[in-house]
Amino acid sequence: LKISELSQRSGRPVATIKYYLREGLLPAGRPTAVNQADYAPSHLERIRLVTTLVDVGGLSIDAVKRVVAAIEDDSLTLHNALGVAHHALAPPQSAGEPAADLVDAVRDVDRFLAGLGWRTKPEAPARTELARALASLQQLGWQVDATVFSRYAQTVDDLAEWELDQTPTDGSRSQVVQSVVVGTVVFERALVALRRLAQEHQSAIKQLRIALPEPPS
Amino acid sequence: LKISELSQRSGRPVATIKYYLREGLLPAGRPTAVNQADYAPSHLERIRLVTTLVDVGGLSIDAVKRVVAAIEDDSLTLHNALGVAHHALAPPQSAGEPAADLVDAVRDVDRFLAGLGWRTKPEAPARTELARALASLQQLGWQVDATVFSRYAQTVDDLAEWELDQTPTDGSRSQVVQSVVVGTVVFERALVALRRLAQEHQSAIKQLRIALPEPPS
Repeated sequence: LKISELSQRSGRPVATIKYYLREGLLPAGRPTAVNQADYAPSHLERIRLVTTLVDVGGLSIDAVKRVVAAIEDDSLTLHNALGVAHHALAPPQSAGEPAADLVDAVRDVDRFLAGLGWRTKPEAPARTELARALASLQQLGWQVDATVFSRYAQTVDDLAEWELDQTPTDGSRSQVVQSVVVGTVVFERALVALRRLAQEHQSAIKQLRIALPEPPS
Repeated sequence: LKISELSQRSGRPVATIKYYLREGLLPAGRPTAVNQADYAPSHLERIRLVTTLVDVGGLSIDAVKRVVAAIEDDSLTLHNALGVAHHALAPPQSAGEPAADLVDAVRDVDRFLAGLGWRTKPEAPARTELARALASLQQLGWQVDATVFSRYAQTVDDLAEWELDQTPTDGSRSQVVQSVVVGTVVFERALVALRRLAQEHQSAIKQLRIALPEPPS
């Protein structure tokens, strides 16, 4: 495949593909002439993966680099590859120690997770994310602790158990890792979109119920 | 309260508070002298709300303006206020007609939502978001249609029904609307964080199971 064909079949401008090449997100093609190279179908797949991570997952180019490296790193277990995807999805500011105003919330979240018996690492960025959500509610005057998330925790625990069972076991190692990463990123966006639609639906039902006149007696 | 006290108690710089005032996110204070004004506790609450929407929800200042206007608009029903929050949370590019490459995916998503019997409006941004997630999977070679989201839809439908039942009914109208908006934004982030933690937990369990040696016979 020529670079122009890669562009045509992926729907991405040639300039974008050259940018991916420069950034190392896409391996170099096989040189055929000065300033010309031949690309394989795997290049097209990689462009689609990068596009998905950027457009759907909202990942930065640096985060995509880490994910691509994880897919290519044969020494990584699936569990660790999932960890790389989670770190890539986390907002940049959540790395490192939590801010001072988050310390109490993080401690409360840790107690909550321990109470659930969840095996999660202290450095999981999602732990700080959850603490930030809790601290926001408290600052807004909600008299709540981390148990306000209990119903949500039960829901996603059931969901995650099912999701992990869906992990494909056939295909090459890098295909399996890619499935796990895509599953995490794309289904997260789908879950959020579906929750909004479900809220709209349930809100419409409940509103309707209130608006209905009493049946004539 | 002086502006310096607002800053101290909210943890936001005075410059940020002045920016909120200029942008109309915060009503002007009661003038007490040239270049001085007195602020009420409601100003502090508003700063905390704006901070949450920006920091936790990732909303743009324009999106926050629309949410604040919805909270202040007495003519809006709760259902419509929820709609404003959903539109504010959607990425800007999803407004208007879907891109050409999304048309098939949107049609499939519509069939899927109709099959669920969900009462959602065609202009709901989450519908395009879901179609984008579906189109991404298809471009990555997954042989799936929108029914791949069935398990997620059931999960969030149950959750949304429960969530709507939690809506506080006491307090002023603007307090209730504010609760709905905050609930949508903050619990969405919490749900996403919890899903990542649950995935990590379930992945750790399953990995452990595989790594465990057979018990000696």
